[in-house]
Amino acid sequence: MKLNIALLAGDGIGPEVIDQAVKVCDAVAKKYDHNIIWKPALTGAAAIDAVGEPYPDETHEICANADAVLFGAIGHPRFDNDPSAKVRPEQGLLKMRQKLGLFANVRPTFTFPSLIDKSPLKRERIEGTDLIILRELTGGIYFGERGRKDDGNTAFDTMTYQRFEIERLAKKGFEFAMKRSKKLCCVDKANVLESSRLWRETVQAMEKDYPEVEVSYEFIDAVAMRLIQWPKGYDVIITANLFGDILTDEASVIAGSMGLMPSSSVGSKVSLYEPIHGSYPQAAGKDIANPLATVLSAAMLFEDMNMTEEAEEIRRVVNKSLAEGYVTEDLADGGKSYKTSEVGDWLASNI
Amino acid sequence: MKLNIALLAGDGIGPEVIDQAVKVCDAVAKKYDHNIIWKPALTGAAAIDAVGEPYPDETHEICANADAVLFGAIGHPRFDNDPSAKVRPEQGLLKMRQKLGLFANVRPTFTFPSLIDKSPLKRERIEGTDLIILRELTGGIYFGERGRKDDGNTAFDTMTYQRFEIERLAKKGFEFAMKRSKKLCCVDKANVLESSRLWRETVQAMEKDYPEVEVSYEFIDAVAMRLIQWPKGYDVIITANLFGDILTDEASVIAGSMGLMPSSSVGSKVSLYEPIHGSYPQAAGKDIANPLATVLSAAMLFEDMNMTEEAEEIRRVVNKSLAEGYVTEDLADGGKSYKTSEVGDWLASNI
Ligand SMILES: CC(C)[C@H](C(=O)O)[C@@H](O)C(=O)O
Ligand SMILES: CC(C)[C@H](C(=O)O)[C@@H](O)C(=O)O
Repeated sequence: MKLNIALLAGDGIGPEVIDQAVKVCDAVAKKYDHNIIWKPALTGAAAIDAVGEPYPDETHEICANADAVLFGAIGHPRFDNDPSAKVRPEQGLLKMRQKLGLFANVRPTFTFPSLIDKSPLKRERIEGTDLIILRELTGGIYFGERGRKDDGNTAFDTMTYQRFEIERLAKKGFEFAMKRSKKLCCVDKANVLESSRLWRETVQAMEKDYPEVEVSYEFIDAVAMRLIQWPKGYDVIITANLFGDILTDEASVIAGSMGLMPSSSVGSKVSLYEPIHGSYPQAAGKDIANPLATVLSAAMLFEDMNMTEEAEEIRRVVNKSLAEGYVTEDLADGGKSYKTSEVGDWLASNI
Repeated sequence: MKLNIALLAGDGIGPEVIDQAVKVCDAVAKKYDHNIIWKPALTGAAAIDAVGEPYPDETHEICANADAVLFGAIGHPRFDNDPSAKVRPEQGLLKMRQKLGLFANVRPTFTFPSLIDKSPLKRERIEGTDLIILRELTGGIYFGERGRKDDGNTAFDTMTYQRFEIERLAKKGFEFAMKRSKKLCCVDKANVLESSRLWRETVQAMEKDYPEVEVSYEFIDAVAMRLIQWPKGYDVIITANLFGDILTDEASVIAGSMGLMPSSSVGSKVSLYEPIHGSYPQAAGKDIANPLATVLSAAMLFEDMNMTEEAEEIRRVVNKSLAEGYVTEDLADGGKSYKTSEVGDWLASNI
């Protein structure tokens, strides 16, 4: 099969981890006789520096015409504490999500048997955790009207949701639930927010189309608690953009290492695959970042293309590297560790 | 000293836990020769049932004229999944916060040596945790404009902040930091939200007035993670209403039992003291709820009245009950446990 994949390395450790995913994908392509055509493009601070724009039109063209997008990370600390910065790398991310229509961010959370004791949570609380958070990604307070009034002394942001936005996300949630243990939890703040009440109303109206799915409704504050108390209590969670931003990061702690958690952002045309970790600027250029989350994101890419065997092959080799301790320093427990590029080479050569 | 305390038992287990706090306060008053005049008043579902309003004017009068308010919990499940309910118990809570001007919710998070192993988090991660979250409580998306458009198919909520709202909350944060380890963390989502950028700008401008305080700025998603990874990294956190709602509940998991965590909501005139747990309807009327969070909230009340010895006495007796295992079933580890009212009696008689 021929695959056009847009390659957005981004900032910080992005380029380094992306390089390893490319090696692994190329090895998979060779083994299964596919032809991957990589289309590199600029995003984030890197794109601001080069062309003054974090998500340039040329990048969008490349992504929109690709079969999928593989993405590293964006963000640079020099923008974070500067409230006056006019162009921010994150704007590129948001523009990309919106222009590509990536309405659902899919974040699986699971544990690796060999790493379970790295979690800050006790083993018995997390062993066997297997949940998916579906975060709405192109609406809500991320894209509502915002601004200043009153000489800049008042600032506002608007959380807006339309019924169809909730429906298409919830539909994905119900579909995932049907393929899994048929439990769906809608997380909101319906005791305060009108938009959350629309979420509840909309999901409730869809329940009849999925009579086998058991649906629950919980408040975001309660879930922020329960997710760490008893993550095994959840299967599929659907939630709004901002709530999902918070919950998915919180959930990533369960696994013990952010360096392992992949994600996809699904659109109606093209989908994007990225590690959930950020650009981790302190580690940039040092060849020490953990590439596994990006590699596992590539596995999600193959999975979504119905190339299940290829996806499994990637997961197998990742598990092998964990089992044999061929890992970067964050996972090495002070023992022998390998460079980012060495781990990438090892994974590719084991395929 | 004479103290007028408004007593708002509320819903669910509220009345039961409040009863125990009253016993303890009365015992303290007797020992230290104070005169507490309790002024009971209706709130929540209980008030809706009685007078059709979750925070009736008479209740407000009583609170506004009291020296302090002691509060149980409100909320009833019959309202939760009914998006069409016109009057909700929670509206009473919000109205109360607004009308009494309770702009800062103060939530300490700490561990009890005897309970540390009840936490889902590993001992070494949490031992010695001692942080305070200051949540803005009368602004933000809780009180902005909200509504429906487009035949009910679009819903919106507005997160609004004015500079003075941020300043008065931040001032409390700086003051707490000065009395503690001089570290303040402002938590926001300034990479997306305009209101968060106003938060950052405002707090940054105040830094010069507190040269000894080391201020950091972190994103809510990152803090949702770090708070469980390494809670000892935080001292005083200041944050907006919605973010605080989520973070304070999340932080409560650290201590291992929500049944232990007190809080205060500070206004310019009167302040309110309440356990952070909810109304826990399943346990209502069974005399099994843990009263310690409410009792410790009463300790915060005495502390704020500069009655430090009285506050210490309450904390001492609570620690004693924990050490001697005179506790409710949630803390009994399957061993001998006591009724809510028995724990209250025991505490009072040990003062
Ligand atoms: C960088 C930021 C704008 C972004 C978000 O909030 O969506 C990030 O936190 C994420 O979750 O992808
Ligand atoms: C009941 C609800 C409206 C309330 C809030 O969100 O403020 C509660 O969760 C709290 O934290 O006191």
